[in-house]
Amino acid sequence: MTQTTTLNRQVQLAARPVGTPTAADFHLATTAVPVAGPGQLLLRTVYLSLDPYMRGRMSDAASYAASVAIGATMVGATVCRVQSSQHAGFAVGDWVLAYTGWQDYALSDGTGLTKLDPGLARPSYALGVLGMPGFTAYMGLLDIGAPKAGETVVVAAATGAVGSVVGQIAKLKGCRVVGIAGGADKCRSAVQELGFDACIDHHNPDLAALLAAACPKGIDVYFENVGGKVFDAVLPLLNTAARVPVCGLIAQYNATALPEGPDRSPLLMRTLLTKRIRMQGFIIFDDYGHRYPEFAKDMSQWLANGQIKFREDIVNGLENAPQAFIGLLEGKNFGKLIVRVAND
Amino acid sequence: MTQTTTLNRQVQLAARPVGTPTAADFHLATTAVPVAGPGQLLLRTVYLSLDPYMRGRMSDAASYAASVAIGATMVGATVCRVQSSQHAGFAVGDWVLAYTGWQDYALSDGTGLTKLDPGLARPSYALGVLGMPGFTAYMGLLDIGAPKAGETVVVAAATGAVGSVVGQIAKLKGCRVVGIAGGADKCRSAVQELGFDACIDHHNPDLAALLAAACPKGIDVYFENVGGKVFDAVLPLLNTAARVPVCGLIAQYNATALPEGPDRSPLLMRTLLTKRIRMQGFIIFDDYGHRYPEFAKDMSQWLANGQIKFREDIVNGLENAPQAFIGLLEGKNFGKLIVRVAND
Repeated sequence: MTQTTTLNRQVQLAARPVGTPTAADFHLATTAVPVAGPGQLLLRTVYLSLDPYMRGRMSDAASYAASVAIGATMVGATVCRVQSSQHAGFAVGDWVLAYTGWQDYALSDGTGLTKLDPGLARPSYALGVLGMPGFTAYMGLLDIGAPKAGETVVVAAATGAVGSVVGQIAKLKGCRVVGIAGGADKCRSAVQELGFDACIDHHNPDLAALLAAACPKGIDVYFENVGGKVFDAVLPLLNTAARVPVCGLIAQYNATALPEGPDRSPLLMRTLLTKRIRMQGFIIFDDYGHRYPEFAKDMSQWLANGQIKFREDIVNGLENAPQAFIGLLEGKNFGKLIVRVAND
Repeated sequence: MTQTTTLNRQVQLAARPVGTPTAADFHLATTAVPVAGPGQLLLRTVYLSLDPYMRGRMSDAASYAASVAIGATMVGATVCRVQSSQHAGFAVGDWVLAYTGWQDYALSDGTGLTKLDPGLARPSYALGVLGMPGFTAYMGLLDIGAPKAGETVVVAAATGAVGSVVGQIAKLKGCRVVGIAGGADKCRSAVQELGFDACIDHHNPDLAALLAAACPKGIDVYFENVGGKVFDAVLPLLNTAARVPVCGLIAQYNATALPEGPDRSPLLMRTLLTKRIRMQGFIIFDDYGHRYPEFAKDMSQWLANGQIKFREDIVNGLENAPQAFIGLLEGKNFGKLIVRVAND
């Protein structure tokens, strides 16, 4: 089933997942394509970004952004073409970065849209290395992590949209970079394609020992994307005055209860105290929206120079978005996960 | 038993405590008073500071500073008089801030000594409001906590050496200040003498509800001195973008094992992430030694103006130091705990 000009397919939230989301938590609905009124434009989705934070939107637990209501269309960033326009600022065929969610079409009054350069080689990069994930990697690493040349930086989800950029920027800054990823293929790619110094497979039961061996001088910056057993392996290796930007905790997003005891939060706090560690959560546009231009300038340059590489994992068809998203939470993607909603 | 000119009493570490220290973990030894050689001076202890961090020195767990060896004299900051001198920089009778530990006499070559103004009204203040605890309060609150006028600052151990200063500085900066302390007398003092807006008794079983009621706009800065159930009450009240300087964790210093489960460290990390919280441990002289002058200038001014008050809890006699220290870990002191080792 492909995109048409007459129907608007929407992936709606059918039920709040208990633990791991399943196909039954999503519902593919079909409605009429809306019509742009005065001052409005109609957007046609070409690319939809799938990101771990969406798991939080499926839940009704309090978080930094509102939940998706049951029966509502799943939210998400998109790269769209303007399909029709009654808005003076946008013409038919314009590429825009939008937040129209898991659907084919959406109306807009132009608020929150970013026009994309029509000469962009890959418009989908606006959802990845030049968009939220890349910006997240850049600010989290450079502003909170503040790596210095010669320091050791560890990043989990090392071939993911954020982790792959974190590690490559850290290499540009002269650090030793150790990735953690799921599987031999991803680890090989992190070292051979992305230039990391080492990458450890978190499926290996000797994760803690392997990580320690890969970090002979300890860890100065740990960019936290995952939590869980990876963080457990990292914690004892953190150096005095280490920095831990907390960007994501994908290993615990599907959890339905806290892990069994003992309660290790006192151990975590003691480690922060005795090693003088800074641990800081951040939400990229809330904390750093005003610094987007410096990121865009640096990253465009690095991409143009071939200093940063970026891999996309593209899934075809909106109807495949739920399964792709479920796989994302299990680490099945290899690179930035994007749904190609329509050929263009 | 009082200080003499012929014997050097030393409180030595007799055994590593298991859980709460007991009198048997200390040993009061008597040795000869050492004699200053060329380039040396002999220091006579007048005041000895007792501080929670000393519990860590009694343990052989890895920490930010070395353990005291079994049989060695307990470490600690002291205010001393120069008793004899063969050092050109020091004269008999000079007051100095030193780190000579729990004993009557010690030799020095001058390294690490700070001469005190002979006109100081209270030389013991060099161990408190004008020394490490005051400096800790100042930098932890202002540099990591970064409170803004109108924000809510919560500080535990609210009448202690650090907490009392944290709260008063926060008041000077225009914040709402809520203390947490053990017992009605301390809470009354925090409000009536120190000027806090409210103070909650942590013995009250409704601690969490009382703290929530005292912080109707949530908590923007939590200055962490204690951990344990106080932190549990604070965590759900932390606001978006809150700051948590981690200065001490006295509630867990005597613990022999982690608390029972569930493991709440994922909850802590999730809260840091979704609320974009900065949590940071610090060790005052390691992190901020270079900024002592700005502290000394501000604090001297505030004391001279009566804008900061400081209470000392003075125990007489070196032989009473162990019991006083055990009480400190149980919250029995009321104000900065100081041992008057000798009359002067």
